[in-house]
Amino acid sequence: MIRARTESRIAFVELARLDKKNALTGEMYGQLADAISGADRDPQARVVLLRGAPDCFCAGNDVADFLKRPPLVEGSPSARFFVAMQEIRKPIVAAVGGPAVGIGTTMLLHCDLVYVADDARLAMPFTSLGLVPEFASSLIVPQLMGNARAAEKILLGDPFTGADAVEVGIANAVLPANEVVNHARRIAERFNALPPGAVRDTKKLMRRARSQAALETIAVEGKVFAERLQSPEAKEAFSAFFQKRKPDFSKF
Amino acid sequence: MIRARTESRIAFVELARLDKKNALTGEMYGQLADAISGADRDPQARVVLLRGAPDCFCAGNDVADFLKRPPLVEGSPSARFFVAMQEIRKPIVAAVGGPAVGIGTTMLLHCDLVYVADDARLAMPFTSLGLVPEFASSLIVPQLMGNARAAEKILLGDPFTGADAVEVGIANAVLPANEVVNHARRIAERFNALPPGAVRDTKKLMRRARSQAALETIAVEGKVFAERLQSPEAKEAFSAFFQKRKPDFSKF
Amino acid sequence: MIRARTESRIAFVELARLDKKNALTGEMYGQLADAISGADRDPQARVVLLRGAPDCFCAGNDVADFLKRPPLVEGSPSARFFVAMQEIRKPIVAAVGGPAVGIGTTMLLHCDLVYVADDARLAMPFTSLGLVPEFASSLIVPQLMGNARAAEKILLGDPFTGADAVEVGIANAVLPANEVVNHARRIAERFNALPPGAVRDTKKLMRRARSQAALETIAVEGKVFAERLQSPEAKEAFSAFFQKRKPDFSKF
Repeated sequence: MIRARTESRIAFVELARLDKKNALTGEMYGQLADAISGADRDPQARVVLLRGAPDCFCAGNDVADFLKRPPLVEGSPSARFFVAMQEIRKPIVAAVGGPAVGIGTTMLLHCDLVYVADDARLAMPFTSLGLVPEFASSLIVPQLMGNARAAEKILLGDPFTGADAVEVGIANAVLPANEVVNHARRIAERFNALPPGAVRDTKKLMRRARSQAALETIAVEGKVFAERLQSPEAKEAFSAFFQKRKPDFSKF
Repeated sequence: MIRARTESRIAFVELARLDKKNALTGEMYGQLADAISGADRDPQARVVLLRGAPDCFCAGNDVADFLKRPPLVEGSPSARFFVAMQEIRKPIVAAVGGPAVGIGTTMLLHCDLVYVADDARLAMPFTSLGLVPEFASSLIVPQLMGNARAAEKILLGDPFTGADAVEVGIANAVLPANEVVNHARRIAERFNALPPGAVRDTKKLMRRARSQAALETIAVEGKVFAERLQSPEAKEAFSAFFQKRKPDFSKF
Repeated sequence: MIRARTESRIAFVELARLDKKNALTGEMYGQLADAISGADRDPQARVVLLRGAPDCFCAGNDVADFLKRPPLVEGSPSARFFVAMQEIRKPIVAAVGGPAVGIGTTMLLHCDLVYVADDARLAMPFTSLGLVPEFASSLIVPQLMGNARAAEKILLGDPFTGADAVEVGIANAVLPANEVVNHARRIAERFNALPPGAVRDTKKLMRRARSQAALETIAVEGKVFAERLQSPEAKEAFSAFFQKRKPDFSKF
């Protein structure tokens, strides 16, 4: 469900569970972690190109799998993915089209260059599920766009377009849907003409102010997230989700 | 001079000293602090809607009252307001039209969602009074918009429009003057359809990176502010203000 | 090669090595440090106006001089310049036209107000020389514009225009090339009508959150920079530069 291959010094990592809109299962988190760490070790790879399908990047966590999964603890597949994304020394270029929901958006905060299709639809709707933001988004989103716009995106959970993602600094550029992957690939190829050691050291310097705070935030968020999963609010949200009805939070 | 009521799960907090353009006195800071803390404890309230008059949000500190007031110390009315704004767990939606000067702008930095009228006129003209920024604006404004734009706003003290406030990330959207309060109310109502515990925990996560630094900055700013109030520069500025003449800072 | 004079309470500091496009030598860093510190002590100066030639702000480090120079260590001319820019209490207004490369761009991150010509061309092409960002740009650039746009500017080293510099928050406004210096001067003159003590204290408050982190980052960057100067990648880059050929980084 995760495809990984290296070609022309680019490590392609592709979400490929199209029948489920690339919703991530625990197994897929583990495969993603392995693909990212593997690309970092691969002497043939200078850069990672992370993508989904052209019309669907990632619909978020697979809800059914998610409820069965153990919480985010050290060594769990999602924790391994979070750490791999923090530790990779090589640049990650992301190509995003269609839905990018929950983790589908928050993982972009940890990529280096992000290109989005004009049909991209991003969202971090954690609160409406009775949950809280993850993957350090509660730290990074306000720092990136200020409290006011961050509140729209992670307190209200408003969806936003590719153009919005550029405006708030999540993405570099918006492109026609059928050109996003090729554009991201051309950007990735540019790293072949740059000295790889200088690129790695620069990425490391750019991240040092943030990576420790990000890992600490991930741990705090994970603890609150696990508590909230057990909350009556979340139970109502998930029950409504599976019953395909509108949740009722008026009693809380 | 502060009106507070809860209706439809929204705690309305309104500055209402229109004959003085909603300039804040010590007494009003105390009432604001009580209204904010009260809304946080009120089981009927899910969100705060903070507003002034449609054509005047807040002209800043009442200068005459301000000079009589004891400095910002622990437990003083303005300190209680600053702390209440940091500690409230529920979201604050602000509706701003007309002048929002000094504290009228800096308090917006601590709200979650901010809607401004097309006639809004914001300003942080502390230096021209011989003073320094307060309410952690010296920390938050540069982080939000970078040093260059922050220098325009708090070193030169340039006024700016509602559209500018959106562009630099202080506000979410600019609206026709007669629609701002209604729009803010519709946004506030959206919190009634969201699980309140998830919203509170998300706000807490979003603020944790910043709230300790904000409180520490407020304390440092307050100390410098108190010193500056006694400075010959500030005396010249206030004396010119009351004599309705242009201050002369050439001798300093 | 650095001209410094004070007139109408403005300390003018001008890069003036036009035959070499204002490329900075060690000697010039020392003169710049002295000019900045001197302006700070000068009772006749309220503000610094930093400029190059109208059609060339600064082409970066002088490469030949740079390779002969001892690394960035405490007390070296470039270290003295970095510290002087952190410690100056008075505002710095910069006027930038034409190329602003490497240090020509990174020094702008430490100015207070920055005005750029419509022909300005900024760039931080450190990686293509096998090097890493300096002058705390690895910290400040991501904080200012987010990781994605920062990666364009300092990981890929893409050049950008004056209008781009405004959009990402490095500069305040873009102006016709022949008006930039006059505009910057009019802005600098505005500080003559403001109380200088309040301006200094406000600048100090605005910088306190950042200046310690900036100095710490400068030290870490300097250590990595010195190591990278000795790297085979940098040797290939500089050798290609002097041989006027394209560097080949495919073997690394």
